[in-house]
Amino acid sequence: MTDPLVIFTPSGKRGHFPVGTPILTAARQLGVDLDSVCGGRGICSKCQVSPSFGEFPKHGVTVRDDALSPWNSVEQRYDDIRGLPKGRRLGCQATVQGDIVVDVPPESQVHRQVVRKAASARDIIMDPATKLYFVHVQEPDMHEPSGDLERLAAALKAEWQIDDLHAPLPVLRKLQKALRKGNWEVTVALHRGSLDDRHKLIDIWPGFHEGRIYGLAIDLGSTTIAAHLCDLRNGTVKASAGVMNPQIRFGEDLMSRVSYAMMNPGGEVEMTAAVRQAINALTVEIAAEAGIEPAQILEAVFVCNPVMHHLLLGIDPVELGQAPFALATSDAMALSAEALELTAMNAAAQVFILPCIAGHVGADAAAVALSEEPGKSEDLVLIVDVGTNAEILLGDKTRVLACSSPTGPAFEGAQISSGQRAAPGAIERVEIDPVTKDARFKIIGSDLWSDDPAFGTPQITGICGSGIIEAVAEMRMAGIVDAKGLIGSAEQTGTPRAVETGRTHAYVLHDGTATGGPLITVTQGDIRAIQLAKSALYAGARLLMDEMGVDHVDRITLAGAFGAHISPKHAMVLGMIPDAPLDKVTSAGNAAGTGARIALCSVDARRTIAQTVRQITKVETAIAPKFQEHFVNANAIPHATDPFPHLSAVVTLPQVSFNLGGGGSVDADGRRRRRARTTD
Amino acid sequence: MTDPLVIFTPSGKRGHFPVGTPILTAARQLGVDLDSVCGGRGICSKCQVSPSFGEFPKHGVTVRDDALSPWNSVEQRYDDIRGLPKGRRLGCQATVQGDIVVDVPPESQVHRQVVRKAASARDIIMDPATKLYFVHVQEPDMHEPSGDLERLAAALKAEWQIDDLHAPLPVLRKLQKALRKGNWEVTVALHRGSLDDRHKLIDIWPGFHEGRIYGLAIDLGSTTIAAHLCDLRNGTVKASAGVMNPQIRFGEDLMSRVSYAMMNPGGEVEMTAAVRQAINALTVEIAAEAGIEPAQILEAVFVCNPVMHHLLLGIDPVELGQAPFALATSDAMALSAEALELTAMNAAAQVFILPCIAGHVGADAAAVALSEEPGKSEDLVLIVDVGTNAEILLGDKTRVLACSSPTGPAFEGAQISSGQRAAPGAIERVEIDPVTKDARFKIIGSDLWSDDPAFGTPQITGICGSGIIEAVAEMRMAGIVDAKGLIGSAEQTGTPRAVETGRTHAYVLHDGTATGGPLITVTQGDIRAIQLAKSALYAGARLLMDEMGVDHVDRITLAGAFGAHISPKHAMVLGMIPDAPLDKVTSAGNAAGTGARIALCSVDARRTIAQTVRQITKVETAIAPKFQEHFVNANAIPHATDPFPHLSAVVTLPQVSFNLGGGGSVDADGRRRRRARTTD
Repeated sequence: MTDPLVIFTPSGKRGHFPVGTPILTAARQLGVDLDSVCGGRGICSKCQVSPSFGEFPKHGVTVRDDALSPWNSVEQRYDDIRGLPKGRRLGCQATVQGDIVVDVPPESQVHRQVVRKAASARDIIMDPATKLYFVHVQEPDMHEPSGDLERLAAALKAEWQIDDLHAPLPVLRKLQKALRKGNWEVTVALHRGSLDDRHKLIDIWPGFHEGRIYGLAIDLGSTTIAAHLCDLRNGTVKASAGVMNPQIRFGEDLMSRVSYAMMNPGGEVEMTAAVRQAINALTVEIAAEAGIEPAQILEAVFVCNPVMHHLLLGIDPVELGQAPFALATSDAMALSAEALELTAMNAAAQVFILPCIAGHVGADAAAVALSEEPGKSEDLVLIVDVGTNAEILLGDKTRVLACSSPTGPAFEGAQISSGQRAAPGAIERVEIDPVTKDARFKIIGSDLWSDDPAFGTPQITGICGSGIIEAVAEMRMAGIVDAKGLIGSAEQTGTPRAVETGRTHAYVLHDGTATGGPLITVTQGDIRAIQLAKSALYAGARLLMDEMGVDHVDRITLAGAFGAHISPKHAMVLGMIPDAPLDKVTSAGNAAGTGARIALCSVDARRTIAQTVRQITKVETAIAPKFQEHFVNANAIPHATDPFPHLSAVVTLPQVSFNLGGGGSVDADGRRRRRARTTD
Repeated sequence: MTDPLVIFTPSGKRGHFPVGTPILTAARQLGVDLDSVCGGRGICSKCQVSPSFGEFPKHGVTVRDDALSPWNSVEQRYDDIRGLPKGRRLGCQATVQGDIVVDVPPESQVHRQVVRKAASARDIIMDPATKLYFVHVQEPDMHEPSGDLERLAAALKAEWQIDDLHAPLPVLRKLQKALRKGNWEVTVALHRGSLDDRHKLIDIWPGFHEGRIYGLAIDLGSTTIAAHLCDLRNGTVKASAGVMNPQIRFGEDLMSRVSYAMMNPGGEVEMTAAVRQAINALTVEIAAEAGIEPAQILEAVFVCNPVMHHLLLGIDPVELGQAPFALATSDAMALSAEALELTAMNAAAQVFILPCIAGHVGADAAAVALSEEPGKSEDLVLIVDVGTNAEILLGDKTRVLACSSPTGPAFEGAQISSGQRAAPGAIERVEIDPVTKDARFKIIGSDLWSDDPAFGTPQITGICGSGIIEAVAEMRMAGIVDAKGLIGSAEQTGTPRAVETGRTHAYVLHDGTATGGPLITVTQGDIRAIQLAKSALYAGARLLMDEMGVDHVDRITLAGAFGAHISPKHAMVLGMIPDAPLDKVTSAGNAAGTGARIALCSVDARRTIAQTVRQITKVETAIAPKFQEHFVNANAIPHATDPFPHLSAVVTLPQVSFNLGGGGSVDADGRRRRRARTTD
């Protein structure tokens, strides 16, 4: 007679096991994803399963009512104290008595899919660096003296096959009390290094620890520090929060911060202290929002650009401000939160920082690569992460290129006459009627267009990044701005909204002066600032295309928190991005943040990205001779020379020209900006 | 024609090498110990050799005058700037042209013998964890971007075959400036972990660094913290210094410190802070004494008993105060000085702490084992490290046993009526005339006996540990004290120096009252205190002998700073140690401190000791039923039952008895002491 057949669903894995085999054992032998923290002692209840009885023609088995061992006292005790859902059994207690079909519910699967992204079907296998383990430790014996830590290590090896335990002092100090309070049973949080494969003891609790452990995925940007608090068991995002990067007071963009460090002895120390303080405050805030203790945060993963990377580490960023833009270190880093003075989280928390790709292409770009996986794409994808500094990736499964381009802060509303950060009251969307040349808009905080009778009289404060992009693109489509970026006069454009401002013109988007409000215009200077920014972005993308030997891309992904708000059509009318089918231009949201979350959830992903980064071809825009040429040609709206066939099929741009003889100034400005970056 | 023959002296190693081979290369291929820090660039001059010319019948070669390449410009430049001793060549510059005999002077040998001990001929091969390396690092290249650290790692791998470089933040912060200032040549100090084999970057200097690097070997005792400052290049002790352990204010002996931690919440934190502060002060002091910067100290090795071990680490020692005396951790520890708040030394300095043998047998005993190597002894050796807590080792090459015994502080002059620490003015040696029963003595600070006319009238302040041991032994030999430890009356002993003190007697060692000085007596209470201490020591040794199945030992080593001052004869008369040939009782000086120095000089020794400790059989005196019996029998002077044949052959002890019926109190005291230790 053959042993009973055990069939697991939904995996479909099956095998024969001797009568008396616990379901958990069968699952492990078959490689079925069934969780257990307590090692099969009936304490943790993570191995819950739902047995099914009766006829299963599909599986070719009949399951008798006594196919599993009867409900036992361990299960009864657990049910009495905490309650087991109806129909559930503990996989470590129920043993095989006959052919059986066992369903593993999602919450009992450790490796369940977590990071589902809108744009793709990619799943992440949960494999976090920090996990909980419940162990029984041998009591001390005077005749065979050994330290409590050494006996804990022996228990972890025997019960969990974990080798090479290492205990930092803060948690070593808690060890003896925990062991005795837990009567020689403890739950430990171990962190497995992705770089050295050692297991570090992060925290310890007496007995079986019911609490959850968390990690922070932090996108440390020049302007914003954004964090996701993730449950390290299943990857769920429990809370998200963001704060302004307080380093802004030392300089709006990266180069001005590098300059601050160069001009002010100790300036980098100030900036390091400021950003660490902000991260500590953010840690407390996000923990409060999720209703957990900050000490439950055992890990943090950082993605950031090279300058932020160095300033977080407390390394003087001066070398990043001048050719050859040498990083102090480019590889991924694993270190203690303590070493970074990130004292708000658990005292023994660990930090992982993604690798930088090059001196201008940081760990944030690496995170985008981890999230968007251009190296696995069948078609050629261009990924632009739009921010104060733009990271650009181009590639497919044959090859991936990367560069960064200094767009400056115009896309974030800075250097714009009525510009402001994205905040309630800011104009974020604009439409201009091509016939009447009148504008309507939406502001942040309202879902209505401004010409809607219900719009009312909200406070209108300025125009944010996505608003200015739409405004300039709409002005171009309505024939108010010509291809060179010049705003026509009232006479030339046929609208009184085109007003004179000295030698140039401006377009009135909103006149609130009658009611004491602001006059919001798009000035010639604003157009120039946007032209500079978009030319830098386009030139970077074009440089990568040259390197790849192509003149078009199959699809474009707009990344960055801001990328989510850019309309593909307007971006293309403006010439921020190369021509492509409009439906092939998508937003990936905060891809860098997603990359950080992936690294937080998966040790394997941390190893992958190190490999990926090594395979990326780095292109340095600052020294590429063609960059200037691309930059100058990209100054026109959408472009002086490159054709935009896909755009032309959807939008017809008016053939207007308001030449006043001042067009050359952009080139000069452009050159000045480049020089500033290379010689500062 | 065969290649020329190269013969190195004093090693005698020889081999044939093609014409043009640098001497340094030949030495490396033959495994000749020839130093080089700069990797053969003619910068460091560490590879100096002395070639010999002429007939060498012994080696069977004739060395022509042109057997080496001519003096070259690199050697000339070095000689101009720094001077090369006459007859010396740089091994990296001089190349083989014919048969040649090359002498490697001692200062060019890296692994030269350093820790020579008086008692044995054992040599230590220099193999320190921290060494200097000079490297040339590739400049950054925008087309192949990589971090400066990654290029340094590549250079170390290419030039020194060093893998797995790891840079803590403090030194990573110095990297970029050093590389640029040194024009891409730097000297780095690397620390090779004995536990994990990784190389940690400890410090970095631009160009070739002429400075030396140092390590501290620290014997952290309950009463004294003693440190040796060693040159990490050759192991030379540059300075030695000691300070009182400031924890004394929390309790004189270990158990009273454990009690302090138990009684006072946060008491262990206070004690940890105090000892770390003292170590920092000692670090500054010893550096000043040696005329070096504290930042040149890149390493420290600690040996200490388990309670000091835990208090240094900031671990509550409470478990060490009660059975089963469980250590938080017993294995050797490698950690950063920063983690221990040892901020006086280099910011990235590393600390190694020797393993503990058991809850009562610490890293100090492990260090004694490393220094004295009982496991390599042909004959059976008993090693006692005398202090407030005595560590006892017994063994030969078949087996080594270890225990500790709580002697209390009497041997250090505490709990003695006129007792004091060893300091100028303290009586340290005593002689009592067996006929006149008069005493003479020596005090610390004078080489003369007190009966010498030139002795004068120095300030006599009390009696120190070795003084009280000699005094009691002399009193026993002079028939003033009987075998049970009772002091006779003036009548019974025939000397007026035996004075009445209530129901007991005391012996007047020195009466300075006539000149306003102290009256220094040895009281019955003093004798009892010494009896308690020596009984504990003897009983511990006897317990190990039982376990080994022997009733005598071949030789005895007295270790501990204090051990050096104990006269073997007096120790044996007192019955501190078992009977043995007197010439086989030797002092090893501060063997624990020597063990610390050995570990500082040799990574291999660090690995050896871990192995050795695992092989030692631990004997727990606190739970051994025979301990009480041994303790009671050892109360007599020298012993109630054990014969002392070797002692009897040299010394005849008077058969006196001054029984007053109070002899039983010692046993009761003894039991009280034992209880206090096991139940506190």
